[in-house]
Amino acid sequence: MALEMFRKKETLAMRKKLIGQSCRLFYSDDPVKIVRARGQYLYDENGKRYLDCISNVQHVGHCHPSITQAATTQMKLLNANSRFLHDNIVQYADRLAATLPDKLSVFYFVNSGSEANDLALRLAHQYTQHEDVIVLEHAYHGHLTSLIDISPYKFQKLTGQKEWAPIPDTYRGIFREDHPNPAQAYADTVKDVIDKVHQKGRKVSAFFAESLPSVAGQILLPKGYSTKVAEYVRSAGGVFVADEVQTGFGRVGSHFWAFQLQGDDFSPDIVTMGKPMGNGHPLSCVATTAEIAGAFTANGVEYFNTFGGNPVSCAIGLAVLDVIEKEDLRGNSSRVGGHLLDRLTQLQTKHPIIGDVRGVGLFVGLEMVTDKEQRTPATDAAAQVVRRLKEDYICVSTDGPWENIVKFKPPMCFSMEDADLVADRIHHILTVNRPAGSPQTGPLWLSW
Amino acid sequence: MALEMFRKKETLAMRKKLIGQSCRLFYSDDPVKIVRARGQYLYDENGKRYLDCISNVQHVGHCHPSITQAATTQMKLLNANSRFLHDNIVQYADRLAATLPDKLSVFYFVNSGSEANDLALRLAHQYTQHEDVIVLEHAYHGHLTSLIDISPYKFQKLTGQKEWAPIPDTYRGIFREDHPNPAQAYADTVKDVIDKVHQKGRKVSAFFAESLPSVAGQILLPKGYSTKVAEYVRSAGGVFVADEVQTGFGRVGSHFWAFQLQGDDFSPDIVTMGKPMGNGHPLSCVATTAEIAGAFTANGVEYFNTFGGNPVSCAIGLAVLDVIEKEDLRGNSSRVGGHLLDRLTQLQTKHPIIGDVRGVGLFVGLEMVTDKEQRTPATDAAAQVVRRLKEDYICVSTDGPWENIVKFKPPMCFSMEDADLVADRIHHILTVNRPAGSPQTGPLWLSW
Repeated sequence: MALEMFRKKETLAMRKKLIGQSCRLFYSDDPVKIVRARGQYLYDENGKRYLDCISNVQHVGHCHPSITQAATTQMKLLNANSRFLHDNIVQYADRLAATLPDKLSVFYFVNSGSEANDLALRLAHQYTQHEDVIVLEHAYHGHLTSLIDISPYKFQKLTGQKEWAPIPDTYRGIFREDHPNPAQAYADTVKDVIDKVHQKGRKVSAFFAESLPSVAGQILLPKGYSTKVAEYVRSAGGVFVADEVQTGFGRVGSHFWAFQLQGDDFSPDIVTMGKPMGNGHPLSCVATTAEIAGAFTANGVEYFNTFGGNPVSCAIGLAVLDVIEKEDLRGNSSRVGGHLLDRLTQLQTKHPIIGDVRGVGLFVGLEMVTDKEQRTPATDAAAQVVRRLKEDYICVSTDGPWENIVKFKPPMCFSMEDADLVADRIHHILTVNRPAGSPQTGPLWLSW
Repeated sequence: MALEMFRKKETLAMRKKLIGQSCRLFYSDDPVKIVRARGQYLYDENGKRYLDCISNVQHVGHCHPSITQAATTQMKLLNANSRFLHDNIVQYADRLAATLPDKLSVFYFVNSGSEANDLALRLAHQYTQHEDVIVLEHAYHGHLTSLIDISPYKFQKLTGQKEWAPIPDTYRGIFREDHPNPAQAYADTVKDVIDKVHQKGRKVSAFFAESLPSVAGQILLPKGYSTKVAEYVRSAGGVFVADEVQTGFGRVGSHFWAFQLQGDDFSPDIVTMGKPMGNGHPLSCVATTAEIAGAFTANGVEYFNTFGGNPVSCAIGLAVLDVIEKEDLRGNSSRVGGHLLDRLTQLQTKHPIIGDVRGVGLFVGLEMVTDKEQRTPATDAAAQVVRRLKEDYICVSTDGPWENIVKFKPPMCFSMEDADLVADRIHHILTVNRPAGSPQTGPLWLSW
């Protein structure tokens, strides 16, 4: 099979003509054409290899042979819908249940994180009979109509919105690392929003948040925050929805789900999962309690998702779970993520433009600032790091409201050598780009 | 690979415990466990073969080797997201464009018909800056929050709704086969709804309808209806959305898209496609005009769909198009669908319980009534036909607001012999089930 059907220039011209321009390309000034991939590496049409630091979807590595094998085997046998009984869907639900708190025992399989989040909203509304949803500042939960409503990241540009609480960011938020108890303080801001909702004569259906807010800037929720928020939300008759679409399936290393970082005493009422679940295959899921599922059934409306939970999707999902275990990818995530965090933290001591380094497992952010005291976002500098790393054949991207956080969420097979390479190259870029003779701190960094 | 991991009883018990009960099983009293399939045949755990008359998703046949091959080949190479340039997405868009009117030249790839319909709503709203959506009575457009709002079929049980126009059903609707111009008469009902919307001081964003309403009972829109409706809707500043999720990709035989049955002078402004598109793989699409896509881009909000348009999905989509052509499945649909329609129409002359037989290609409905004059829906009889056909290892199901229409939308490789078998069995069932000594018409049919 030829790897290219059209020359790159032609592909780009066709893309501009045929695909909605709202669907943006990476490196839009000079997009990359990728024709094959393996593990954590992408290859362009000239055979140039890129180190992939951002494809969290291809969780166990691009084109993992075990995943291809599982898909092929099941595609040859059967891919009917879930209205017929089949073992894969129940086996897969059973395996997922084993990773979750006991109370999260009922599953709905869908095709995307957006579909999962939309269904989570429906479940919460049906169960609580309340309407209002509280989300975090700068949140993004998907591309569907219902989710734009709850995604400040996008909806600030559009009409309509829900309530949102301040992002619990201890580097840049309203309570910082010097606060004696940021978890309590941030949780209290959610309580304030609940009070505001009640003052309007309305009621809270759900608190809806990523377990590690990613678009908001690779944020780690202070430990204890979720437990406290869940307490407030449940007191108001609402439920706690943990969006694990970006963060689940062992990315954080120490735990299978990022919400588990909050401690054993915490369990959400609904968990949504997606991106890494099928290693690229469209596969997502909502897990909830028997009580919430029961309320949804009681409305008498069937929920049928044409492709959701089909035997091929579930076979792929099962294979992903197997590979995570067999290759100890959670262990790898802890080790390599820890090493990457160490290396970037060392760079922070050398390069004042690095304001903060944070992360857990292979979910890491490097926040760039032009001024360490003011923490002024170094948006242009971050964009330049992305561009310069591309010249070194390393793919990273930025996140955060000011796009000043360089993010790392690579396939989970990312290696120590990969971590060293990217840290070395960032050190090099920050060193050579420093204006000659300049001090290491101060406004000269604005020259970026 | 073992075809079964659990015994059927255990699968069923796990299913009840682990999967939301809103996700219903076929034959809920005695569900079928299917472990493999090929072409138009399903095989249960005991090797019993069922003729599949309902899986319109497995369009070119269950487990078609060309589709599996295309998926496997691409899975081994690359399955990155559409932010990288790739030939498959542009080639696939180009191939789809060739099947559509020239003006439908911009594509958005998504993962399900529901995602496609949700995006169509967003496109229509953004382009028209209007809010109201007109749908047909008994319509169903998907399971997402936004789509329940526009699906009378489900939303009648829930809160909230949009405007709907009478279903243009010339057998049971307000204008019937004896009306001199049902197309015009039904189109005028849409005009009435538009007027009603305007009287409320509101504006119409879209008329949204399946090209052949299926849940509403396998309805054929009177020819000329859509052209006239489009004229009214565009005059009101709205757009015409054709939902081809169930009906596209040659199912109607004579044309690639069911909206083309309305004539060459008709083109929708937005077309959504889904179910058959990936032969079971989660793959869907929205096609629209450059103007509408341009308005969507102009809002400045990125549309990113994680899995949409990935190289594997597009490789599968391309393979489906190839098989439709190579195996002349449209020709087969016309021939076999025509034969099935003939056979069922013959049965209609023998069995007064058959009130109407209608269809085009392999989209066929057999409407059962207890009384030919009153056209009283024979809901129980239709359910009994479904159950009895199951005993003969033939899978059909019912549709329509009274679930009295036995529907046929089999894989497109359905054969003359399959059509004969199902017609023969229906004849047999209707013959042996007739109460002894009863006349062929009249209220005794109520004894079903």
